[in-house]
Amino acid sequence: MLSSVILSVGDELTLGQTVDTNSAWLANRLAAVGIDINGHVTVPDSREAIAAAVRYASTNVDLLVISGGLGPTEDDLTREGLADAMGVELVVDQLALATIRGFFDAIKRPMPPRNQVQAQLPRGARSIPNTCGTAPGIAATIERPGGAVCRVVVMPGVPKEMFAMWALSILPELARLAGGAVIVSRTLHTFGLGESTIAQRLAAVDGGLMNRTRNPSVGTTVSHGVVSLRINERADNPTTARQELDATTRLCVDALGLLIYGQDEETLPEVVARMLRGEKRPDGSTAKITTAESCTGGLLAKLLTDAPGSSAYFTHGYVVYANAAKTQLLGVGADLIAQHGAVSEAVASAMARGARDASESDLALSITGIAGPEGGTPAKPVGSVCIGLSWRSPAGETVASTRSFLFPGDRDMIRDRSAKMALTLLRYHLLKQPCPL
Amino acid sequence: MLSSVILSVGDELTLGQTVDTNSAWLANRLAAVGIDINGHVTVPDSREAIAAAVRYASTNVDLLVISGGLGPTEDDLTREGLADAMGVELVVDQLALATIRGFFDAIKRPMPPRNQVQAQLPRGARSIPNTCGTAPGIAATIERPGGAVCRVVVMPGVPKEMFAMWALSILPELARLAGGAVIVSRTLHTFGLGESTIAQRLAAVDGGLMNRTRNPSVGTTVSHGVVSLRINERADNPTTARQELDATTRLCVDALGLLIYGQDEETLPEVVARMLRGEKRPDGSTAKITTAESCTGGLLAKLLTDAPGSSAYFTHGYVVYANAAKTQLLGVGADLIAQHGAVSEAVASAMARGARDASESDLALSITGIAGPEGGTPAKPVGSVCIGLSWRSPAGETVASTRSFLFPGDRDMIRDRSAKMALTLLRYHLLKQPCPL
Repeated sequence: MLSSVILSVGDELTLGQTVDTNSAWLANRLAAVGIDINGHVTVPDSREAIAAAVRYASTNVDLLVISGGLGPTEDDLTREGLADAMGVELVVDQLALATIRGFFDAIKRPMPPRNQVQAQLPRGARSIPNTCGTAPGIAATIERPGGAVCRVVVMPGVPKEMFAMWALSILPELARLAGGAVIVSRTLHTFGLGESTIAQRLAAVDGGLMNRTRNPSVGTTVSHGVVSLRINERADNPTTARQELDATTRLCVDALGLLIYGQDEETLPEVVARMLRGEKRPDGSTAKITTAESCTGGLLAKLLTDAPGSSAYFTHGYVVYANAAKTQLLGVGADLIAQHGAVSEAVASAMARGARDASESDLALSITGIAGPEGGTPAKPVGSVCIGLSWRSPAGETVASTRSFLFPGDRDMIRDRSAKMALTLLRYHLLKQPCPL
Repeated sequence: MLSSVILSVGDELTLGQTVDTNSAWLANRLAAVGIDINGHVTVPDSREAIAAAVRYASTNVDLLVISGGLGPTEDDLTREGLADAMGVELVVDQLALATIRGFFDAIKRPMPPRNQVQAQLPRGARSIPNTCGTAPGIAATIERPGGAVCRVVVMPGVPKEMFAMWALSILPELARLAGGAVIVSRTLHTFGLGESTIAQRLAAVDGGLMNRTRNPSVGTTVSHGVVSLRINERADNPTTARQELDATTRLCVDALGLLIYGQDEETLPEVVARMLRGEKRPDGSTAKITTAESCTGGLLAKLLTDAPGSSAYFTHGYVVYANAAKTQLLGVGADLIAQHGAVSEAVASAMARGARDASESDLALSITGIAGPEGGTPAKPVGSVCIGLSWRSPAGETVASTRSFLFPGDRDMIRDRSAKMALTLLRYHLLKQPCPL
């Protein structure tokens, strides 16, 4: 098994001003291809500290994965530190320089002189393409005592650039190097139930799907309301591993059914967008959806247009924050608002019906709620949210269903959960299944 | 100045299953009392790895702060690793044992036999009380080459227990040792220029604000298009430190002017929201703003309503994704769209004017662009975005200004930068200053 060390570079990390999430992300990926992780090291933006860490790690392990310190400024010193540890000088890599120039040409701006330093590499190293930014990555090898080598890969610290470089250039090479034993993983995503409820349901299946000794193992993680199930299978043989993974996936689906909306990199907006693209009118054209948002202030429309090609099903949406706007744009009765309050199923229903009628769309989603921190009452505390969904009945009438929720957390969380729950209700509607939430 | 290393212990950390937030928390606290942080190290639950990390750190720095691996189970090996590095054996500390017994007496449960190992300390070390759990901390000293010593403190990895132990026992001792020296920090945020351009401007001030040897030091980081300047001042005296920080802040402001929109925890949406709340009509009521969004699909309205109390200035917004919606809702001429294309300054201007008129708001922001990945042409590649701002002139007419941009990156990035740039143009308008971007 290959041994490795993960090195993060940056004053903001050593000073604790930024939490290092890159190292955990990288560790997960290294483990997934069966590479052993001997440790993580974080050093400040110091040429000497970087060089010392590279020297220490490269004498002890087969692989050193570095992130950060590849920017164009004076405090970006990973290139220098690595060259010092390798005992070589920095030289300009013409391919890297051409790529950086190309980046600026594409956005029709002159290349700032400082960006030229990003094309410098330790002599003998090669550059790794960066598809999302100007800093190329670096691949090098350092000889270890006894004739073995330590492979070094350096990636930018900007997560998006690092993720892309990892997937395109680093992972294929490492998977080949690691050979043989693998950890095969799959992640299933759910929205709507809490982590402990999900765990209870999983515990009731196959003698306990989350038992620590089970293989494949099943664990849960939560991020922004999405409870994800990670299934990890350790095996020598990829074919068997895949079969075991499929069998455990089926058990998870038995336990949770349609609550599982997607897997691996799929997001809830992507899954809903794919369903909407397939939703056809009798004449074969794509059905249209509109939005009427109060407390989420445009977030639902933003999520519905996250996916490329959303113009197929979305033409426009309404952000009706004030009561008067609900009345003027969507025809929600001022008396209805006065009688039930703006945050009520009656108003959510009228918003969805009004938006559908006004836009001549096939479907309309509405959200009205109290995102806080102000505006809560004992009867309708902060977090009270009503969601409406309107569509045309087979008889040609506008009909609507509504649901009420009480979401925990702060303003950001309540808005996020509201929009995701609206997508979830839409998803069950498109699946023609009752929503169990 | 005292030097230090932070060591975290745990398989869940090295495998990336848990993000290490303890190290950042500890680093913040060490910096606050003026202790220099040479690096962070994370090792798995391995006696050898812990001993090796302790040996390496303790020869190089004055202080080693360890968290994790103090539990009662077989994979808690920090006590053993530390003893190995110190070259001593583990002995039962009677005070620690009595404290652990007391913990179980207090919750009226018998002490499980395994908890007795938590009372073991390397010979010569002393225990540190734990007010929230069973694992006592450990304080020890290790002799360094040349006669100096490295002080070692070990705390539990459970954040709650660590925080309490830090506040009650560790901090007072370290503050005394550090003797009043402090690191004071401030972060300034900019949007609109790249990191290298910002660095060029800072390099031209005061002999180079980003010179590595300068105190206060200035470094840059980028997150989602926001380039932030971190100013760190090391000083013996908090009052002088604050003055130095203020002086360097003024130099940064001289170099970048109004490009700096906020500092520390402030976000661009918050800063703009605060300005909008202060924007008054002649009658003293708060001015209203509306939005007309195409490619951002609601994101701009979402950002404008991120802040609590946004109903003071925002009543509603339009998400006009399709051309027909631009015409029907905002009166943008179909011929105008045919002539100039939907992504044009002419259409951005008409969207902003139309939204302002339709909503009877005082201000309107519009965005139309090509977020991709499809839809680009040689003349208007993916990333082409036009932003419009409309307001009423003193003579009572609706006027509009427009700007064109070419943003790099993928669909997410282009939408994010477009919305932030719209907020930035609005900010300069409210400041009554020309926007230099």
